[in-house]
Amino acid sequence: MVRWEPGAQERLQQAALELFATRGFEQTTAMEIAQSVGLTERTFFRHFSDKREVLFHGQHLLVEAFLAGVDAAPADASPIEIVAFALRSAASFFLDERRPHSRTRQFVIDQNPALQERERHKLASIAAAVADALRARGVDEPAATLAASSGVTVFGIAFAQWIREDEQRSLADIAAAVLRELLSLTEQAAASGRIP
Amino acid sequence: MVRWEPGAQERLQQAALELFATRGFEQTTAMEIAQSVGLTERTFFRHFSDKREVLFHGQHLLVEAFLAGVDAAPADASPIEIVAFALRSAASFFLDERRPHSRTRQFVIDQNPALQERERHKLASIAAAVADALRARGVDEPAATLAASSGVTVFGIAFAQWIREDEQRSLADIAAAVLRELLSLTEQAAASGRIP
Repeated sequence: MVRWEPGAQERLQQAALELFATRGFEQTTAMEIAQSVGLTERTFFRHFSDKREVLFHGQHLLVEAFLAGVDAAPADASPIEIVAFALRSAASFFLDERRPHSRTRQFVIDQNPALQERERHKLASIAAAVADALRARGVDEPAATLAASSGVTVFGIAFAQWIREDEQRSLADIAAAVLRELLSLTEQAAASGRIP
Repeated sequence: MVRWEPGAQERLQQAALELFATRGFEQTTAMEIAQSVGLTERTFFRHFSDKREVLFHGQHLLVEAFLAGVDAAPADASPIEIVAFALRSAASFFLDERRPHSRTRQFVIDQNPALQERERHKLASIAAAVADALRARGVDEPAATLAASSGVTVFGIAFAQWIREDEQRSLADIAAAVLRELLSLTEQAAASGRIP
């Protein structure tokens, strides 16, 4: 048996996504994924702990991208400015050539409540990690949690827009636009003088 | 067998919370909950579909409280102002006398990842319902989702503060303070002129 298959991980991931999207996540086994690209189930499990892991592989890299953005913000940046840096860093993780892949992945997740739960958990973990990083920079509560959660909300909305078929802008550009929209919404509310 | 037990639901709920908190959620059965207050398992299942339901019972009332707040906002209110109304309405759902109950419930949820998932799902459902209601009032995207998600973030932070042992303020007062903090954070960021 071949001990190392060059590109096996990417081939398995691509094959898994296609099978999940066409047959359904529940109806696809690790064995079928492996066989569809001429690999063994054993090779599959050398790369992924289970078939769900194919969809959430690389999550730690996304968290690290957010945190690298927090680190890159100037020392005097306000909490929301720090979050703007984190968003830009996280967005750069998603190259435009990954858009069809991300779109198919989201399609698969949207079909399956358990995968949606897992995705919510992922986003909640990112918000918690960013809030930790803000506190480590001296940001108090509730500012740290508010800023971090707002950042993840902006990211989620921007991501959903980025994978739309008719969207051409980069994820970074969309995230910046959604963040500006949040600032303009809150500005409008503050200016009304009617928030108690 | 007694067909109707006055106050059975409240007694079951109280007993369940105590057992969940002392023994653990997983280690407690519906039968034990019922027996601890001299009721039968059958009576338990007349009131709750399963033991998890004890913790999430009344969730639709909370969603309705948020939506009643949206309805109560003046026609010319901006999205964040509407959310302020929704927060005030939702907060009024939690009387101060319920604080110990809510504190114990949260303690139980914090011990159990599956219950945390369920709680996240509840909050996501509220955000989706409020965003729907905002769109029905003519608010565009992404403003509707941004405002609704911000409202639920504020609610979550305020709720965690409200159930702290040293906290005396009402949930409505805390939620209003957290919302003001969000406005001041975004104002600070907008004023910096450094958000791209």
